[in-house]
Amino acid sequence: MRTLEWNGKTQQLKMIDQRALPSDFQYIYLDTHQAVFHSIKDMAVRGAPAIGVAAAFGMVLASLESKAANVAEMCTDLDKASKLLETSRPTAVNLFWALKRMSGIASHNHKNIQYLRDALLIEAQKMADEDVAMNRQMASHGAELIEDGDTIIHHCNTGALATVDWGTALGVIHMAHEQGKHIHVLVDETRPRLQGARLTAWELSQYKIPYEIISDNAAGYFLRSGQVNKVFFGGDRVASNGDVANKIGSYMLALAAYTNQVPVYSVIPTSTVDLTLKNGDEIPIEERDQAEVLNIQFNNQPATPQGAKARNPAFDVTPNHLLTALVTEKGVVYPPFDVNLSKIMQDY
Amino acid sequence: MRTLEWNGKTQQLKMIDQRALPSDFQYIYLDTHQAVFHSIKDMAVRGAPAIGVAAAFGMVLASLESKAANVAEMCTDLDKASKLLETSRPTAVNLFWALKRMSGIASHNHKNIQYLRDALLIEAQKMADEDVAMNRQMASHGAELIEDGDTIIHHCNTGALATVDWGTALGVIHMAHEQGKHIHVLVDETRPRLQGARLTAWELSQYKIPYEIISDNAAGYFLRSGQVNKVFFGGDRVASNGDVANKIGSYMLALAAYTNQVPVYSVIPTSTVDLTLKNGDEIPIEERDQAEVLNIQFNNQPATPQGAKARNPAFDVTPNHLLTALVTEKGVVYPPFDVNLSKIMQDY
Repeated sequence: MRTLEWNGKTQQLKMIDQRALPSDFQYIYLDTHQAVFHSIKDMAVRGAPAIGVAAAFGMVLASLESKAANVAEMCTDLDKASKLLETSRPTAVNLFWALKRMSGIASHNHKNIQYLRDALLIEAQKMADEDVAMNRQMASHGAELIEDGDTIIHHCNTGALATVDWGTALGVIHMAHEQGKHIHVLVDETRPRLQGARLTAWELSQYKIPYEIISDNAAGYFLRSGQVNKVFFGGDRVASNGDVANKIGSYMLALAAYTNQVPVYSVIPTSTVDLTLKNGDEIPIEERDQAEVLNIQFNNQPATPQGAKARNPAFDVTPNHLLTALVTEKGVVYPPFDVNLSKIMQDY
Repeated sequence: MRTLEWNGKTQQLKMIDQRALPSDFQYIYLDTHQAVFHSIKDMAVRGAPAIGVAAAFGMVLASLESKAANVAEMCTDLDKASKLLETSRPTAVNLFWALKRMSGIASHNHKNIQYLRDALLIEAQKMADEDVAMNRQMASHGAELIEDGDTIIHHCNTGALATVDWGTALGVIHMAHEQGKHIHVLVDETRPRLQGARLTAWELSQYKIPYEIISDNAAGYFLRSGQVNKVFFGGDRVASNGDVANKIGSYMLALAAYTNQVPVYSVIPTSTVDLTLKNGDEIPIEERDQAEVLNIQFNNQPATPQGAKARNPAFDVTPNHLLTALVTEKGVVYPPFDVNLSKIMQDY
C-alpha cells in the first residue's frame, strides 16, 4: 500500500486523501496535471518526498493530456505543466528537484511522442521506487541512533504518508521498533493542520508503537524535565550549511531540545539538500490561508471571534547549530555540515 | 463589568462563564462553595488572580451555607471548605494566598456568626477591589516598557477575564494602547484550551487593538525573523529566584525570545510570588484531562485516532535568566531576582 501509485489500466494517479484521515481512509484518482497541482496545494498529498513524486506523475499526466503533434510541441506543453506544478508549494525543494529530473528526461532526443510518454512514466515510477528504497536506507542508518527505552518527540508527519512508502523520521522510528527496541513517542500535534495528531498518531497505532499526543507548546516541559531522549523530524529544504526548513514549530522544538542537551535529528533524502543556498535565510517560506489557524472549535463552537485575523507561516528554519546530525540515505552527516554535506552530495 | 462579582441581594457569586466565549457571553450564578470549586476546576473562571478572588468568595458562601451554632463550629466548616477549594487547582499560588487570607480573617475573635460572615464578605470584596487597583498599578509600570509601534507576542489570556478586571500582561498592553501607542499583538492561540484564540482575541477586539492569532509553534518564526519587539505573559507562581510557572508554552516562547534578543516580561501581582520556594522546580505542575488535547476537530471530523492518548501538563516553568523583568504593582523588578524580589516583598 503506497501513499501514491500509478494505475496503468486507467492511466490515473491514485493517492490516499490525507485530508480525510484519521476518520476516513479514502483514495482519490487524478486524471490531469491540474488535478495533481490542486492535490499538492490543498494538501491531499503532503510531505516533501511525496509531493516530489506526485509532481513527477503530474508530468506523466501532462504528457497524456497533450494534444501535441510532435515531440517538440509536447515539450512545450510539458514545460507549461511543470511551471504550474512548481507553483503548488514553494518551500520543499523536492518538488523542484523532481520536476527538473522529469524535464531532463523530456529533453532527451525522443523518437516520437509515445517514446517520450513512456520515458516519463518509467522515470516517475523509478523515482517512486527509489524513494521507498532510500527511505529504508535512511531508516537503517537512523535506527542505529535509537536506543532501547528511548522517549522521542516527533514533529509533523514524516511517515509512509509523507513519502511514497515507509517514511523518513518516522521510518527511522518504525525501523527501530521492528528491531525490537522499546520506544515511546511524544507526538507533537502540529498545529494548525494537525499532521501529528491526525497522521502520525494514525500511523503509530497501525505499527503498534506506543505514543501520546502533546500540544506543540508542551514539548519544552517534557524536554526541560528530562523525560525525552531524542527529537526527530524531517526536512523540506536543507541549505548548504545544514540549516533545515521544516514544518512550522520545528525551530522552537529544536531550540528547546538543544538547550536541554537532547539530540535533534533531521531525517532527509539528499534530494532535500539545496546546495545553491548558502543558508536557511534564503529558503522561501510559504504562508498559507489564515483559515487553517482560525477554523478551530472549542466545545463545538468557533474558538476565534468573528472577524479575527491570523498569520500562518507553514515552515520555519532550524539553524544548523541546533542539529546533532542529518540522517540521509548515504549515512548520518555530522557537523561541520557545510563540509560534510557537500562531500556527501559529490559522492551522490 | 467584572469577571466575577458578589450579588448582595441574592447572596450569589456571579461570574462570566469563560468556557462559552467567544461564541456566547453568559453569566453563571454560584450558591455554594462546592459550585465555586467546580467553576475553578472546570475553568469557567481561570487566571491566577481571578481564581484567588473566586476562592475568597467561595469562603463567603461556605459561611452562609454553614449550619454552625457558634463561631468555633463555623470555623470548622470554613476549614473544610478551604481544604476543598485548595484542591481545585494546584499551580497558581494566588488560590492558596487568598484562602490563607480568608482563614486569617476567620481566626480573629469574632463576637458571633454574623460578625464572622460580615468580616469574610468585607475581606473578599476588599480583595476584589485591590485586585483591580493593583492591575492598574502594574499596567502603568508596564506600559512604560512599551514603545509606539511595538509588535508584541502575548501568551494565554491575562486580561480582564483572568482577573477581577483590567488584567495583568494584557492590562499593560491595554494601558499602552490607551496612552495612544500603536501596538500590534501576535496572539498565541494557546493550546489546548485556546485561551489566546478565544479570550485574548475577544478582549483585543473589544479594545480595538490590532491583532493576529498565531499557532503557538509559529512564535519562533516571527521572533527569529525580527518581527517582534517584546513578549508579555502573566504568571501563576513565581519562586524566590524569579523562576515563573505560567501557562504551558511560556517556556518555549521565552526561550525563543531570549535567544533572539527580544525582551520577555512576566506581569504578576506580588500575591503570585511564593518566597517559600527556592526555585521553579519546586512548583507543582497540574496535569489536566487528556480530552483537552484529544478533542480537536479537523474538517469537522475528530483529529485524533480512536483510542489515542495524550499528555496534558497545564503549566511549565520559565527559568529566571530568560526573563528581562517582572512587572508588579510595586514596580518593575529586574535581575538579580532573588535579591530584588525579596526586597520588594519586604516593603509590601
